[in-house]
Amino acid sequence: MNASVDTLSSHEDELQALRDALQTRLAQLLPEGHEHDLVCTAMREGTLVPGKRIRPLLLILAAQDLGCELGQPGLLDLACAIEMVHAASLILDDIPCMDNALMRRGKPTIHRQFGENVAILAAVALLSRAFGVVAEAEGLRDASKTEAAAELSRAAGLQGLVQGQFRDLSEGSQPRSAEAILSTNTLKTSTLFEATLQMAALAAGASMQVRQTLRYFAQDLGQAFQLLDDLSDGCTTTGKDINKDSGKSTLVAILGPEAVHQRLQEHLISADEHLSHACGHKAVTRHFMRRWFEKQLTMFG
Amino acid sequence: MNASVDTLSSHEDELQALRDALQTRLAQLLPEGHEHDLVCTAMREGTLVPGKRIRPLLLILAAQDLGCELGQPGLLDLACAIEMVHAASLILDDIPCMDNALMRRGKPTIHRQFGENVAILAAVALLSRAFGVVAEAEGLRDASKTEAAAELSRAAGLQGLVQGQFRDLSEGSQPRSAEAILSTNTLKTSTLFEATLQMAALAAGASMQVRQTLRYFAQDLGQAFQLLDDLSDGCTTTGKDINKDSGKSTLVAILGPEAVHQRLQEHLISADEHLSHACGHKAVTRHFMRRWFEKQLTMFG
Repeated sequence: MNASVDTLSSHEDELQALRDALQTRLAQLLPEGHEHDLVCTAMREGTLVPGKRIRPLLLILAAQDLGCELGQPGLLDLACAIEMVHAASLILDDIPCMDNALMRRGKPTIHRQFGENVAILAAVALLSRAFGVVAEAEGLRDASKTEAAAELSRAAGLQGLVQGQFRDLSEGSQPRSAEAILSTNTLKTSTLFEATLQMAALAAGASMQVRQTLRYFAQDLGQAFQLLDDLSDGCTTTGKDINKDSGKSTLVAILGPEAVHQRLQEHLISADEHLSHACGHKAVTRHFMRRWFEKQLTMFG
Repeated sequence: MNASVDTLSSHEDELQALRDALQTRLAQLLPEGHEHDLVCTAMREGTLVPGKRIRPLLLILAAQDLGCELGQPGLLDLACAIEMVHAASLILDDIPCMDNALMRRGKPTIHRQFGENVAILAAVALLSRAFGVVAEAEGLRDASKTEAAAELSRAAGLQGLVQGQFRDLSEGSQPRSAEAILSTNTLKTSTLFEATLQMAALAAGASMQVRQTLRYFAQDLGQAFQLLDDLSDGCTTTGKDINKDSGKSTLVAILGPEAVHQRLQEHLISADEHLSHACGHKAVTRHFMRRWFEKQLTMFG
């Protein structure tokens, strides 16, 4: 029993150390500017406010499971690039002409703090910076960096986050099928997870077969995330606007919370199987994912 | 006399052929989507509407002067990537919370055609696509592609277009010094010219010395462009809003049109000298720049 508690606490300590390293590196990559440089401040505020850091953690843990050393140069930078793209997408999703959100990560949204034009410029600058960070990441082969940039481009652009946000805007308030919602969820969440895992695989020099298995994992993981997000709407502990999805056609509204719980579990089992195929006996990422979902589901399950 | 007219007409024919090739390639890189996919349509509309194509032309001509073959694979793609970043910046500059412009390239601005949210998503998708196009450009060394991506990241982000737009928004309506205006002009225009020329140099495998000379050239060229833009405000042939700068502190307002003309000529002479140093006896780019400015100045000089 004690051994198990110790393992758990050591796992949490390692995650916290990684989060601290990410925070330090993000702050280095987004240096403070002149006090009047609101765009720079907004970029930092949108990125450095403590978040779950699920994507960068996943990138580093998966890269380790695939054979990278923890201290491998460039790994932390790839993880920071993913977090910057994620932060940019949150800033944009929240602006008045998109979701018009008031709160994010427990604080007023970036456009409410800095104005809409600064928020948009900060998001664009974060996206640009992410590609620069990938291009300049040390210790990675140029061929890996160009492939990583191509993955990031697909995830952020018209076939990924942008399309997901557009579909949510244009179809979210209309009745839509479960399939339409699942397809939008893939665009909104799975594509960036896919880029995250591909970047981990590129850093580790994984085979094409492993990379394909990780794509399947990312699909399941993205769906699980979006279902968790749907289930959490109405919960006060997310730091986001409450009941934001009220009136939106979500899977919870169509299928009911129990069926969504069931689907979530199915995606988690499938995700775990793919991860097990990709990483063999290395199970840090699997452990991390399982713990993370358990914790979230306990909070509002 | 006839020989000179023939040379001129052959030069114009070559430029038109290049513009046609760019148009075809841009349309391939931004394929038509589903009819309801407004973001895709807005991306195409913002990019494919005929423009001057000054940046991509400059990239291709300079690369040729530096030793590239016209048909070198990847060159056209780098040129298209630059044009996509330029198109993205124009879409964003025009939205209501930025310059709130009504007309661009003789047509209603993208947000007026498709709505503000679609315009923003189209700009973000174009920026992402540009980095993807660089990463996937054929026939270029991976090391050149990562350097090109780093240059593009600097030009588009906080130290380039984003910062220029922010300064214009936050300082443009207040009294400011000629130096402050010149510094903003550099950020708004020179940085993307710098990336354009660096990408030409990377494609041609130019030396670091040549690359540094091209940076000086880009600085002068950017200043000349912005001065030309200031002088053209109030002119009906630009396809943009007329007298948009009314009330803004521009160099024309501070120094008067004659002094601005004088400065423009000085920048053009300096730009030509840098280009001559960088390209030696190859003078297609020099000829192109000279002709282009002469033509513009005749139109509203």
